[in-house]
Amino acid sequence: MNRVLGGSWNEFVPVSRIIMTPGPVEADPRVLRAMSYPILGQFDPAFTELMNETMGMLRELFRTDNWWAYPVDGTSRSGIEAVMASLIEPGDRVLVPIYGRFGHLLHEIAERCGGRVITQEKPWGTVFDPAELIEAIGREQPDVVAMVHGETSTGRMQPLAGIGEACRRHGALLIVDAVATIGGTAVDTDALQLDAVIGGTQKCLSVPSGMAPITYNDRAERKIVARKRIERGLRSNTASLPLQEAPPGPSPIQSNYLDLAQLQDYWSPKRLNHHTEMTSMLYALHEGLRLVLAEGLEARFKRHRLHESALMAGLTSMGLSMYGDPLSKLPMVTCVQIPEGVDGETVRAMLLHQFGIEIASSFGPLAGQIWRIGTMGYSCRQTNILHLLGALEAVLLRAGVKLPAGEAVQAALDAYEEARVG
Amino acid sequence: MNRVLGGSWNEFVPVSRIIMTPGPVEADPRVLRAMSYPILGQFDPAFTELMNETMGMLRELFRTDNWWAYPVDGTSRSGIEAVMASLIEPGDRVLVPIYGRFGHLLHEIAERCGGRVITQEKPWGTVFDPAELIEAIGREQPDVVAMVHGETSTGRMQPLAGIGEACRRHGALLIVDAVATIGGTAVDTDALQLDAVIGGTQKCLSVPSGMAPITYNDRAERKIVARKRIERGLRSNTASLPLQEAPPGPSPIQSNYLDLAQLQDYWSPKRLNHHTEMTSMLYALHEGLRLVLAEGLEARFKRHRLHESALMAGLTSMGLSMYGDPLSKLPMVTCVQIPEGVDGETVRAMLLHQFGIEIASSFGPLAGQIWRIGTMGYSCRQTNILHLLGALEAVLLRAGVKLPAGEAVQAALDAYEEARVG
Repeated sequence: MNRVLGGSWNEFVPVSRIIMTPGPVEADPRVLRAMSYPILGQFDPAFTELMNETMGMLRELFRTDNWWAYPVDGTSRSGIEAVMASLIEPGDRVLVPIYGRFGHLLHEIAERCGGRVITQEKPWGTVFDPAELIEAIGREQPDVVAMVHGETSTGRMQPLAGIGEACRRHGALLIVDAVATIGGTAVDTDALQLDAVIGGTQKCLSVPSGMAPITYNDRAERKIVARKRIERGLRSNTASLPLQEAPPGPSPIQSNYLDLAQLQDYWSPKRLNHHTEMTSMLYALHEGLRLVLAEGLEARFKRHRLHESALMAGLTSMGLSMYGDPLSKLPMVTCVQIPEGVDGETVRAMLLHQFGIEIASSFGPLAGQIWRIGTMGYSCRQTNILHLLGALEAVLLRAGVKLPAGEAVQAALDAYEEARVG
Repeated sequence: MNRVLGGSWNEFVPVSRIIMTPGPVEADPRVLRAMSYPILGQFDPAFTELMNETMGMLRELFRTDNWWAYPVDGTSRSGIEAVMASLIEPGDRVLVPIYGRFGHLLHEIAERCGGRVITQEKPWGTVFDPAELIEAIGREQPDVVAMVHGETSTGRMQPLAGIGEACRRHGALLIVDAVATIGGTAVDTDALQLDAVIGGTQKCLSVPSGMAPITYNDRAERKIVARKRIERGLRSNTASLPLQEAPPGPSPIQSNYLDLAQLQDYWSPKRLNHHTEMTSMLYALHEGLRLVLAEGLEARFKRHRLHESALMAGLTSMGLSMYGDPLSKLPMVTCVQIPEGVDGETVRAMLLHQFGIEIASSFGPLAGQIWRIGTMGYSCRQTNILHLLGALEAVLLRAGVKLPAGEAVQAALDAYEEARVG
């Protein structure tokens, strides 16, 4: 413990890291600066204006005309649970396609919401053909379909074409976890007819973990509003608000903190008091979104593809093999097979402690099998790619791996040069 | 909307405010600076060390030897719901004493957790004699008692002496919402035998809203652990973790995000992956706690009392009346009766827009009746008190109120001088 004799605690001294995990990743210095601005009260007009602007920028990010686009005050998982707890009524049939760890998480949360879960599973490293899911939706007639767009545990991305349309045809609501993909590749909420989408901040948006941007359409809102209950303390003893007991009909939402019916009242012009909005995190999200939109979504997606290709060129020329089906690779996470005879954790520790670079391991069946290298948001830049390739080569040489020394960085430099010419 | 033609969004430009509400309040510049430090990965040893230090400082803040003292990643309300959802099983008898808005919130959350709620109510502006509550605990034999320590809606503080002991005698768990009081007045977790306590950051700790520090003892932990379920995705397909289906017996916790059984595994040396810890918010909390403990808890409590007394001397000499039972006044919130014929919201708007000072109105039966002035944390300082008194006097004179001009600030200056001499 960093504790001085006599009872006083030391100030935190940040160490400098190159973060190349699937999140959290480095934040743009302008986002960090925004968090150092003084506090505003949550009903201060200067602050509610910031809330409204954030909603406007989130609509652009999610490519939607939905009115509702705002952050839930918690990490990405809080946004997932808020959407699921608000849209899944106890007894609802919930179809959850699973192709990695975060599909299991959706299953878990759907169950805790009282849903009757039907799962479809694919082996890790692969994804579903959308036609299989469309068929399953017709067969199972779910009330809700909940699925992951970018599965960071396996580095795969699920194509979504046609699934929203199938849900609409069969009267199901489609919830998509786009935590890993938002801001790094296209998440076409309206074009794909996604009813509710959850994004993450600490990945391709490069905003520190702490908020979960969500959006949902009128179909989703209708179900949420039908379950609405005005909070005790805002209704009882209150002349200005109608006394409204739990109405007969749809069951109320089981969480108060993650109740979208209440959150949307707080994010509406009514500003009905709920929690105390996270001032500094909202400053960060606002600035992060501003930077994403100033770069331009298409330019940003292209940048993610560029650095991914340079990274893969380097890794491949080092003799390393990629994990998983290449056709469904998630552009911002590259999963590498740990070479035979190499201890993955020793390599990660040496990268961190000697080079100040963090990459990730994985979960469950993939623990010890792969490294996961993230190229997300502000971390996704040439200097980081080159430093990582040089460092990884050095560490693998140190571990006795036979590889063509020097070629990885050259291959990445070639990739960058070709991109500049092309 | 602050949107420039052509689609680009403007940078947020912070305005400077003196914030004298019951939260969120101003943050110390050192806390704001800490949030501008670069990101660390959540399993980086430099970060887990910061987590451990934060636990150590929270134990001192809560005056407890409890092992479990850590923040929930959300606003204060998330901490309240995490504790209640984890400690209240469906069907549990929950006694909720109510003497203001936030008592109603505890009632609301207890109901959503499936508790059978028994309420005791006191008129707003008063609190309970602990003997009444001790008697009610004996009579009602609740499984859980949930109550508010500092009720910001009415500016009252509930004495807690003897209540923890009564709960222990009758086998109940005592949950205390100390969101408003922590860091501003004594919250003696162990001495008062409180089983679980929730603190707030954006009030007397002067850390931006976004984390909810909690602590709980072994009695509480036993109930939490009995309800534990290892998350899907961490257990299925996983050789290294036991396959563990929902055991018969206690019902599982209904939230995943706010499941203390999982959160404590993440805050333990196991570091079992759950959400992605809020990097920058934890930097802020760590620095805020460091500053609180460096000032010293007793010195900090005394400072809150000093500025409260100077504020009240000023308000009283302006001819204003205080709201509520003076014996139970919350030291960090002063509730003032809005004078006859004055529109409270017009006064608040003029304070904000002409003087840059924010004070609060209240809820429900008190809307339009009182102003609430917070003297919390970093906002609780002499310059703020003097500016507010001068500004409020000017605004009331402008509204045609008859008052002895100039006396309020003099009375406050007198109070400060007396305190320096005494």
